[in-house]
Amino acid sequence: MARWEPNARERLVRAALDLFTEQGYDATTVNEIADRAGLTKTTFFRHFSDKREVLFAGQDTHTRLLADAIDAAPGSATPLEAVRAALDALTATFTDDRREFGARLRPVIAGHTELQERSALKRAKLAEAVTDALHKRGVPEPTASLAAELGIRAYHDAFDQWADPAGRQTLTELTRHVLDELRAALAALD
Amino acid sequence: MARWEPNARERLVRAALDLFTEQGYDATTVNEIADRAGLTKTTFFRHFSDKREVLFAGQDTHTRLLADAIDAAPGSATPLEAVRAALDALTATFTDDRREFGARLRPVIAGHTELQERSALKRAKLAEAVTDALHKRGVPEPTASLAAELGIRAYHDAFDQWADPAGRQTLTELTRHVLDELRAALAALD
Repeated sequence: MARWEPNARERLVRAALDLFTEQGYDATTVNEIADRAGLTKTTFFRHFSDKREVLFAGQDTHTRLLADAIDAAPGSATPLEAVRAALDALTATFTDDRREFGARLRPVIAGHTELQERSALKRAKLAEAVTDALHKRGVPEPTASLAAELGIRAYHDAFDQWADPAGRQTLTELTRHVLDELRAALAALD
Repeated sequence: MARWEPNARERLVRAALDLFTEQGYDATTVNEIADRAGLTKTTFFRHFSDKREVLFAGQDTHTRLLADAIDAAPGSATPLEAVRAALDALTATFTDDRREFGARLRPVIAGHTELQERSALKRAKLAEAVTDALHKRGVPEPTASLAAELGIRAYHDAFDQWADPAGRQTLTELTRHVLDELRAALAALD
């Protein structure tokens, strides 16, 4: 029978990132991650399907935050205004104490093709969730998916800036700024 | 010493797709693919790093076609005009006899997360190549990457329509049409 392990998920993520930083991603086993977190391998697999997945913890929560905020946006909001509200809701959860965590996450993913692959698909799935939420508001294709992809791109670009230990701006400020820049740049396409 | 195997690459791709269709992607081994193609496992690995990669053959050629066409576009071309010219050059290589091949490729990728992951990264890499070629023309960020991503999205969406055995339009016609639609939809973002 499963025991209740307080903060198991977060402990596993922190242990994994510590080990990846210390000894490399390839050299780290699921057993070691569980050991370091003071948990069992069984508990690991209750939370994550594989070693890669531990680096993308939070994807479900992020998806839900985005979709809920788009549902809650006023009926008068344009597609991009709804996306902006969703990004505000998502990025508000990235408090300053998570910045250093983000800074250590990035080089691990950048150093492994298999992690980049999963990251690319995760990003596409996040955009799909935003697209679906916009469809529910009656936004047609391809406007909905364009607004979604622009928003997710702004979030990712801003995250890269935010995950700099020397940074001062919040992820919310950075994301708003990048989205404004992207919006303005669309005018220069042709 | 490596023997010269005529059309080895194409024979391996055709054999792989035949086997994936007949018995499934998971059940098919590299050995079986090489056997079916009348080639050796060593020859397989001279052309592809793994079983997944055989489904993304052509990526290097596509990248080169896109980048060369952007280099060759007139200096007066806007970013999106340069991308249009690049997509024309790429899609011209998708002759009608490749349509059925595309139709069989899609369900195999759609059915496997690991293939979707690689596909998502390949797509991102294609957009990066176009972005780099636009930078060489002096197009700044984020305009260059936005034009590139819009173009690659048009190509992918159009490919899905083209890979319908009942289809009649060429991939070039479909891609131009989708890109026009995407361009028009940007006006409705806000």
